[in-house]
Amino acid sequence: MTAAYRFNPAFQSPQGSPIRELFKYTQQPGMISFAGGYPAPALFDTQGLAKSAATLLDGAAAACLQYGATEGAAQLAQVLREVTRVRIGGGDPGDLIVTTGSQQGFELLLRILLEPGDGVVIERPCYPAAIQALRLAHAELLEIPGDARGMDTDALEAMLLAGARPKLLYLVPSFANPTGATLPLARRRHLLRLAVRYQFIVIEDDPYGQLRFSGQAEPPLLQVAQEIEGARDWLVYLSSLSKIVAPGLRIGWMCGPSEILRRAVIAKQTGDLCTAPWMQMVAAQYLQAGHLEAHLPHIIATYRERCAIMLSSLREAFGDRLALIAPEGGMFIWASWKDGTDATALLQSAVRHNVMYVPGSAFYATQSDPGHWRLSFANAQPEEIIDGVARLKHAHQEWMHMLA
Amino acid sequence: MTAAYRFNPAFQSPQGSPIRELFKYTQQPGMISFAGGYPAPALFDTQGLAKSAATLLDGAAAACLQYGATEGAAQLAQVLREVTRVRIGGGDPGDLIVTTGSQQGFELLLRILLEPGDGVVIERPCYPAAIQALRLAHAELLEIPGDARGMDTDALEAMLLAGARPKLLYLVPSFANPTGATLPLARRRHLLRLAVRYQFIVIEDDPYGQLRFSGQAEPPLLQVAQEIEGARDWLVYLSSLSKIVAPGLRIGWMCGPSEILRRAVIAKQTGDLCTAPWMQMVAAQYLQAGHLEAHLPHIIATYRERCAIMLSSLREAFGDRLALIAPEGGMFIWASWKDGTDATALLQSAVRHNVMYVPGSAFYATQSDPGHWRLSFANAQPEEIIDGVARLKHAHQEWMHMLA
Repeated sequence: MTAAYRFNPAFQSPQGSPIRELFKYTQQPGMISFAGGYPAPALFDTQGLAKSAATLLDGAAAACLQYGATEGAAQLAQVLREVTRVRIGGGDPGDLIVTTGSQQGFELLLRILLEPGDGVVIERPCYPAAIQALRLAHAELLEIPGDARGMDTDALEAMLLAGARPKLLYLVPSFANPTGATLPLARRRHLLRLAVRYQFIVIEDDPYGQLRFSGQAEPPLLQVAQEIEGARDWLVYLSSLSKIVAPGLRIGWMCGPSEILRRAVIAKQTGDLCTAPWMQMVAAQYLQAGHLEAHLPHIIATYRERCAIMLSSLREAFGDRLALIAPEGGMFIWASWKDGTDATALLQSAVRHNVMYVPGSAFYATQSDPGHWRLSFANAQPEEIIDGVARLKHAHQEWMHMLA
Repeated sequence: MTAAYRFNPAFQSPQGSPIRELFKYTQQPGMISFAGGYPAPALFDTQGLAKSAATLLDGAAAACLQYGATEGAAQLAQVLREVTRVRIGGGDPGDLIVTTGSQQGFELLLRILLEPGDGVVIERPCYPAAIQALRLAHAELLEIPGDARGMDTDALEAMLLAGARPKLLYLVPSFANPTGATLPLARRRHLLRLAVRYQFIVIEDDPYGQLRFSGQAEPPLLQVAQEIEGARDWLVYLSSLSKIVAPGLRIGWMCGPSEILRRAVIAKQTGDLCTAPWMQMVAAQYLQAGHLEAHLPHIIATYRERCAIMLSSLREAFGDRLALIAPEGGMFIWASWKDGTDATALLQSAVRHNVMYVPGSAFYATQSDPGHWRLSFANAQPEEIIDGVARLKHAHQEWMHMLA
C-alpha cells in the first residue's frame, strides 16, 4: 500500500518536460540528436573560463564560497548592466538582478504575479518549459498564433478587444524557440502599445538575441520600450549566459520595474537564497576580461555554417514535402510536413535510424498540426548534420512505405 | 504615477527576511557581528576546493559547463547517498536528488504539496526563511513550543488530538536554528509515530548535524524511521554542504519517498532546470577525495572553542540576568533576558557599540517574549567574541541606565 499523499492538485499527476522525456534516446549508441536546445560543448570557451576560475580562489575565495546577496554579486550585476546597455543601444537598462538561469527569473515572476486562473498570453508554438511552469501555476493559457515573423499582434489585439484581460504575456522575440522567428519592429511597437493600454506585463525572454548570423538586428523590446510612453513599466527583460557562455554556470538576469524586482528578490530569498557566488564571480571575471566579445564571433560563424548545411540538406532531401522557416540566428529550425507525415509517429522510425528531433506537439498547450517538428543545428558537426538528414530521409521513406 | 500591478496577494506587501534586513549594520566599520548564520570563511577548505576545481575543466569540461540532469549529477548523487548512509548508521537512504541548497529543497516541497490554507507545523521559535516561505505559500502556521530539547511532541500530540490536521511539519532536530536545541530520541520516535498516525509529512532539515562538538549523537529521523513501521513514507530528509563545506557551492540534497521526489524534480525543471553542474562536480570530487573527513574535525574544534568562550563570556558578563541554552553543536546560542530587557530595543544600543545579534522576534510567526535573542559563535575569532560580549555589556548597562 502506498501512502495517501495530499499533493497540491497541480502536482497530482504533473507532466514533466516533454523534451526531457526524449533524453533516453540520446543514450542510444551512434545517435545523432537534433533534439536538445543544448549549445555545442566544443564551443565552450573552456580556456577563458578556466583562466577566470583559477585566479578567483586565490584572490576572492571568501566572496566565492560564502553566501552572497540575493540580488546578485555587485561585480556581476554591474557587468551585466553594461552588457544589457550595449544591447539596447546605450540606454539605461534600469534595475537588474541575477537569477539562477533565466528559467528561475521566469518562475519568480509567476510566483509573485499569478493567482490560479490568471490569463497568460503565449505564442503558439511556445517554449515547453514556459508552458509547463504556467500549467503548474494553474494559469489560463491564452495562445496567440505565431508565424515566420513571430507572434501575430493583430490576433493579440483582437483577443484583447474581445475582452481578454491577461496578466502576463511571455515571448522570445528574437530567434524564438521553437520557430526561430524574429518579431519585426512594427510588431514590437504594436505589442508594447497593447501592453500599456491593457496593462499586462510583457516578459521578453532573450537568450538567443546575440546569436544573429544573418540579416538586420531588431532592437530588444527593452530598447523599443524607451520610445513608447509607459512601456518600460510593463516590461521585464530576461536573459542568460547559457547560450553564449555556458549553461553550466546557471547565470541569468532580469531587468524591470523596481516594484517587480524587489518582490522577485523576496521570492528568491526563499527559493535558493542566492545564485552560486563562485559561478557569479567566474562569469563577472570572464565578461570583464572581454572573453565573450572575443569568443562570440566563433560561435556565430559556427552556427551560421551549421544552419546553412542543415537547411540545404533538408531541402535537398525533402523538397516541397517540407516547409521550413529559415532563421537568421539562434539554434533552431522549424519544419512542417506538407505531405501528411505525422512528426510524432515518424520519430519512432527516426530513432530506429539513430537520429532524433522534437515533435511539434511538445510546443503547444493545445492540440496542433501533427506535421510540425523542431531541429537544432547547434550541437552537431557539419558531417553529422548531413548524415543525420540522410537518416531522416531513410526513416521518412520507410514510414511512407509502411503506410502505402 | 506608478503602474497598477496586480500581484499575487501574498506578494502585495511581502516581508523580506528579517535577518537580511540587518545586513546594513554589518557594513559599519569595526562591527563585530554575532548575527548571521554564516560559517567562518577562514574555515573554508579553499585549497581542497581549488584542487577539486582545477582538474575538472581539463578532464570534464563538458560535464561542468553543459546543462545537467535535473535530479543532479550521477557522481554527486552517489557520493551524497554514501554520506547519508553513513549518517544513518549504514541503512538505505532511499531516493536522493540534488538541490540548489536545502532552501530550494524546502521550497520544492511547498510547491508540490501545499495549497493556500494548508496547515504546517513549525517549532516555536523557528528558522525565519521557513516562516517566510510558508507565509508566501499562504500556509496556516501551527506553532508548537520548543524548549532546550527541541519541539514538545506532547504539545504536538495534544494539537492533533484536538483535531488539527497539518499536511506538513518542519523542524531542525539537531542543533536547531535558533535555539541550538537537539531533540532526544524519545521525542524523535514520538514525532514519527504521530506522523504515521495522522499522515503528515515531516521535513527533517539537517544542515548542522555533523557539527557536534560535545555530548552524545542522536540518530537523524531518517535513521529512527527505519524502526517505525510506515515512518519512511512520511519523512523527507534535507541537508546541505553549506555549513560543512561552503555555502557558495549552493549544494543541498533531499532523500524521501519516490512519489514525492519525482514531483520535486518536475517542480525543479521549471525552477532552475538543474543545480550548477560545475559546482556539483567540484563537490563530488571534493567529497570523493576525502577532503571533508580531513577538514571537518578542524571546523568542529574551532566551533567548540568559540561556543565555550561565548558561553563563559556571557555568563560572566550577565550572570543570572540572562538564561542561555548551551548547545552541543551547530552555530547558535539562544539567550533570554530575565531582567525585563527587550532584545529588539537593546539592538539599537548594541549597534551603536558596534556589536550585533538577531532579536528573537525574527524567529516567531506570532508575537513572542521580547527577551529572546540569538547569537552565532561560528564567524567570530575568540578575541572578537570576548570583545563583542564586552560591548554588549556596555550597551546593556547604557540601556538600563537610560531606563532608570
